[in-house]
Amino acid sequence: MAFVTMKPGTLLSPVPAVLVSSGMPGESGPVCNVMTAAWTGTVCSDPPMVSVSVRPSRYTYELIEKSGEFVISLTDRKLLRAADYCGVRSGREEDKFARCGLTKVPAQGMAFAPAIAESPVYLACRVAERLAPGSHVIYIGRVVSMGVREDLLSPDGAIRLDRADLIAYSHGVYTALGETLGFFGFSVASPKVFARRMKQLRG
Amino acid sequence: MAFVTMKPGTLLSPVPAVLVSSGMPGESGPVCNVMTAAWTGTVCSDPPMVSVSVRPSRYTYELIEKSGEFVISLTDRKLLRAADYCGVRSGREEDKFARCGLTKVPAQGMAFAPAIAESPVYLACRVAERLAPGSHVIYIGRVVSMGVREDLLSPDGAIRLDRADLIAYSHGVYTALGETLGFFGFSVASPKVFARRMKQLRG
Repeated sequence: MAFVTMKPGTLLSPVPAVLVSSGMPGESGPVCNVMTAAWTGTVCSDPPMVSVSVRPSRYTYELIEKSGEFVISLTDRKLLRAADYCGVRSGREEDKFARCGLTKVPAQGMAFAPAIAESPVYLACRVAERLAPGSHVIYIGRVVSMGVREDLLSPDGAIRLDRADLIAYSHGVYTALGETLGFFGFSVASPKVFARRMKQLRG
Repeated sequence: MAFVTMKPGTLLSPVPAVLVSSGMPGESGPVCNVMTAAWTGTVCSDPPMVSVSVRPSRYTYELIEKSGEFVISLTDRKLLRAADYCGVRSGREEDKFARCGLTKVPAQGMAFAPAIAESPVYLACRVAERLAPGSHVIYIGRVVSMGVREDLLSPDGAIRLDRADLIAYSHGVYTALGETLGFFGFSVASPKVFARRMKQLRG
């Protein structure tokens, strides 16, 4: 079937829709905020680094500019409504943590940016690079600590992210993750290894 | 439930697992390659830009360095095996297009990098920025053209990416996308708008 050539757009998909929390010192104690970002991705394995893009009009932009840090919280199905709400409303107008029932907890290595207790995984990041190519400022963050909810760790220490019920975002639509289809390297695995790994993953 | 603090890692999830094609002039005509990248993300809306991270040991690195361009092809369930294979085998050893049954077609605005006919969507990109923070080189690409398979366009011109059967990658595991859970802004939509949009999306 043929392609229809269209005006360039942001159609990379599916992407995560994560909560990005940030903070800074305020006049009467620390202030913080949480927003949703789908313009995020892993950019380096060693050291582990991620990108998060933020419009300069956002309150989060001000907090990251001042603190040089942010925390990414992965979103699961229970966080769907919060993830949507924190993407459309501003923390300048209301406390979105309180509004969405999100509990701030300390994230190792962060001075101000909190993790969110309701999230399955957090990645605490310090800004390593900053680019300003247009509508968004791109923050390249080095992951300085990572927290995984204890029920997602199997007895052998493996992280079972496949049990986290994560959500994805695809061209304006949030979806659940569905059936497990394979594992990295399955296409070159022996039938025996394939059967064993798929049984583990589906079990 | 409590977080277990762990060594920092690349746990951002779910992420796309896209095919990245590239090319350059060779001694006996153009050469090209295709690899899989999960370290990719949208980084800017206007202009539309994406990041793709590539290890310098990869053949694709050489091609992008020489040509300054690449094409991202989204992956659906039919492309799952190709997406895995093109992530573990090198184009220096074999023609992965031929091996995986991928058909090269021209991508508007690209001198050498082909689109893949079997993919639902391609994003043709020119390298705008390049960062080298560690194991991977980060290419920030400006999307210069975009192709959408014609069956994904509804009569009103809307892109129905929710019908593309895309796959996601999450900590070493490929998954299908599942149930449609909501749309951007649903948490602040009126019940009437919510019902109408969800009916459209699920219909």
